Amino acid sequence: MDGFSCAATVLADASAKIIDGKLVAKQIREEVGVEIARMKDTIGVVPGLAVILVGSRKDSQTYVRNKKKACDAVGIKSYEVNLPEDASEYEVIKHIATFNDDPSVHGILVQLPLPRHMNDENILNAVSIEKDVDGFHPVNIGRLAMQGRDPFFVPCTPKGCMELLHRSGVEIKGKRAVVIGRSNIVGTPAALLLQKANATVSIVHSKTKNPEEITRQADIIIAAVGVANLVRGSWIKPGAAIIDVGINPVDDPASPRGYRLVGDVCFEEASKVAGAITPVPGGVGPMTIAMLLSNTLDSAKRIHKFK
Amino acid sequence: MDGFSCAATVLADASAKIIDGKLVAKQIREEVGVEIARMKDTIGVVPGLAVILVGSRKDSQTYVRNKKKACDAVGIKSYEVNLPEDASEYEVIKHIATFNDDPSVHGILVQLPLPRHMNDENILNAVSIEKDVDGFHPVNIGRLAMQGRDPFFVPCTPKGCMELLHRSGVEIKGKRAVVIGRSNIVGTPAALLLQKANATVSIVHSKTKNPEEITRQADIIIAAVGVANLVRGSWIKPGAAIIDVGINPVDDPASPRGYRLVGDVCFEEASKVAGAITPVPGGVGPMTIAMLLSNTLDSAKRIHKFK
Repeated sequence: MDGFSCAATVLADASAKIIDGKLVAKQIREEVGVEIARMKDTIGVVPGLAVILVGSRKDSQTYVRNKKKACDAVGIKSYEVNLPEDASEYEVIKHIATFNDDPSVHGILVQLPLPRHMNDENILNAVSIEKDVDGFHPVNIGRLAMQGRDPFFVPCTPKGCMELLHRSGVEIKGKRAVVIGRSNIVGTPAALLLQKANATVSIVHSKTKNPEEITRQADIIIAAVGVANLVRGSWIKPGAAIIDVGINPVDDPASPRGYRLVGDVCFEEASKVAGAITPVPGGVGPMTIAMLLSNTLDSAKRIHKFK
Repeated sequence: MDGFSCAATVLADASAKIIDGKLVAKQIREEVGVEIARMKDTIGVVPGLAVILVGSRKDSQTYVRNKKKACDAVGIKSYEVNLPEDASEYEVIKHIATFNDDPSVHGILVQLPLPRHMNDENILNAVSIEKDVDGFHPVNIGRLAMQGRDPFFVPCTPKGCMELLHRSGVEIKGKRAVVIGRSNIVGTPAALLLQKANATVSIVHSKTKNPEEITRQADIIIAAVGVANLVRGSWIKPGAAIIDVGINPVDDPASPRGYRLVGDVCFEEASKVAGAITPVPGGVGPMTIAMLLSNTLDSAKRIHKFK
C-alpha cells in the first residue's frame, strides 16, 4: 500500500462533516477550568496530578511537558518525578506508594513505555484504583466490561473518542460499531464503551479474515490499529461516523520535516463517503490530554465529595 | 413466538454433529480426578472448595448439593456454610474472610442469587482473587479483557463453552463469532474468551436492531440470552458451530412435570443447518460443574506450585 497518498486524486467534493477535535478539546479544557475554579472557591481544594517519567525518551519528555502545561492552564497542580533509565522497579513503586498516600494528589500517571527491564503490569497495578486516572488498572477495565458496574476512570483516548461522538450528535444506541484494533489502551476499552452505550460492537484485528466486509456494515468506526491509511473508501458505509485514532508518520519530501502524519483511515477517500470524520492531526489527538484533565478533576470531586 | 415447538414438523434429516456435553463433562471430571489423586500421592494435598449458601431457595440448594456431590466424586474436600435468609452482608463477608485465610481452601464460591438486601458487588469483591474459582471478580474479568494478561480463573460456564468447541475440533482463530447476550456471568466473558482465541467477535443484545442478519454471518454462535427458541434456522450460516447456553422451561402437557426445557436455539431447525450443536439439556449444563472442579484443582496446583 502506498502510505503517502491513499487517493489517486484529491477531489473537491468532500461531504463528510469534519469533527474538530481541537475545538472540542478546547471547550472541554475550558469547562474543566471553570469547575476547578468553582471547587477551589467553594471548598479550597485544587486537583493534583502526579506524573512519573522513567528514562529520557524525547517523545515521552514532550508528552509529559505538554501534560504539565495543560494542567497549569486549567489550575491542576502537577507533581513530577523523573527517574533515570536504570532506576529499579522498586523505586518506581515506592514513588507510586507515596503519591497513593498523598491527599493533595488525585491522579497518578506513569508515562509509558517503561524501560524494558521493568514489568509494566507490576507497576501499573501499584497505582491506587481511586487515583488511576489513566484507567489502565485491571479492576477499572473489568468494571468497564461488566454490566451494572462502572469503572473509577475510563482510559483517556477511548473516552475522548466517545466524547467526540456524543458532542457531534452521533447516536450510538442500537447502531452497528466496528473497532479496528484491540490494544489495552484504545481498542479494547473503546469496544467496551460502545457496548456500554448499547451499540452492537464487532472488533476487527490482525487475525480477522474479511475486515473490509465487516467494517462496511458499521454505522460507527473507531480505527486504532496504527497502520497508515488502512481503511479505504470502499470499507465505509455511506454516512458512517469515523473516529481515527491512528497517528502514523509517512515520508513526505514536500514537508520541511520530511514526513507528515496520517491516520489509520484514508481521509481523502473516507471524507467522500462518511457522514462525519475526525482529521489527523487535530481529531482524537487533542482529546487525550483534555480527558486526562477531566479524569483528574472527577477524581478530586469524588475524593472530596464535591458535586 | 410459540415457545413450545419452534419447528412445524420435526424431520429426520438432521445433519449437525451433536456436541455431547454430558460425555465431555464426564471425561473432564475423570481427568480432574486423576490429577487430584496424583497431587495427593505426590505432595499430600487435597483441593478444597468452600461454598456459601444464603437463604433457602430450593434451586440454589439443589445446585449446592450437586456441586458437593461432584466434589466428593473427584476427591475435592468441600466446605459448606449455610446462612439464614436474614443474615447480614457482614456475616457473609466474615465467612469469606475466614476461607480466604484458610490454607486448606483453594476455591470459594458464593451461591447466587443472594437475598435482595445484600449487595452482590461488595460480597463478590471480598473473595480473594486467588480463590475466586467462579472468576467473577472485576480483576479477573479485567485480565480476561486485556491483551497480555491472564485471569486467575475463567468463569465456569463460558469456559465450558470454549472447552466444548475445542474438544469438538472447532477452529476458532480467524473465525467470525457471535455471542447473543452480554451477562457478566456468560455472554461478556464468552465474548472475551473468543476474542482471546483470535476470533472476530460481535455481541448481539436486546438493543441490536438486526440480530438475525448479524448472527447469520457467524461461524460460531454462543447463545446465552435466556429466551426460548430465539435463534431460528434462518439465523444460522450453514455449517456453523452452535453452543446453546439457554435453559428455558416451556409448557409441555405431554411431560409428567408439565413442562420441558429448551435452549435459546430452536434445536429442530438449527440441527438441520448447523455443522455442530449442543443439545438442551445435556450440552453446556453439565460442563459448568466440571469447570468448577477444574478451576478448584488449578487453584490448588497454583497455590502449592504443583505441576
